[in-house]
Amino acid sequence: MGIRHIALFRWIEGVTPEQVERVEALLGRLPGVIPELRGYEFGADLGIGAGNYDFAVVADVEGEPGFLAYQRHPDHQAALAVIKPMLADRAAVQFNID
Amino acid sequence: MGIRHIALFRWIEGVTPEQVERVEALLGRLPGVIPELRGYEFGADLGIGAGNYDFAVVADVEGEPGFLAYQRHPDHQAALAVIKPMLADRAAVQFNID
Repeated sequence: MGIRHIALFRWIEGVTPEQVERVEALLGRLPGVIPELRGYEFGADLGIGAGNYDFAVVADVEGEPGFLAYQRHPDHQAALAVIKPMLADRAAVQFNID
Repeated sequence: MGIRHIALFRWIEGVTPEQVERVEALLGRLPGVIPELRGYEFGADLGIGAGNYDFAVVADVEGEPGFLAYQRHPDHQAALAVIKPMLADRAAVQFNID
């Protein structure tokens, strides 16, 4: 069974569009280097909902081993090292998908 | 262009598995009655990540009109009426997908 991993980010004050573009560039490489990723979508909030977080990442993987492979991959860790200093808040869920 | 709408829920203390099953039953009906939903996944958190929220809903719709049609649909509103008293916290993002 697949697992869908969702992470929502709220940026700290002062995060620039260039910083978000850098995050998008780093995340955009991951499907090409992490074979356990069977689906990967991410993007900035569109501003059509009140009180929203600022950015979403959705990773579809095969089972818990796939999730751990994604989490631990060095290129994912490198992206997280850029993301973490930008974070005011993070919300996450992993749930089963077909 | 499509929009992916994500909502993560954290339940208040005391929410029962039966209440969550009722939410799942109500949400499970929506793809059959809201034609604007081109993809719909939801489920309870698997407990494999620290500090996670408890439940996720992911709705893929066509553009902002599709998003609004989903949001405003009476069956979605009926599900929200059940969900809202169960909520300690909610996090949401809408972002563009292909």
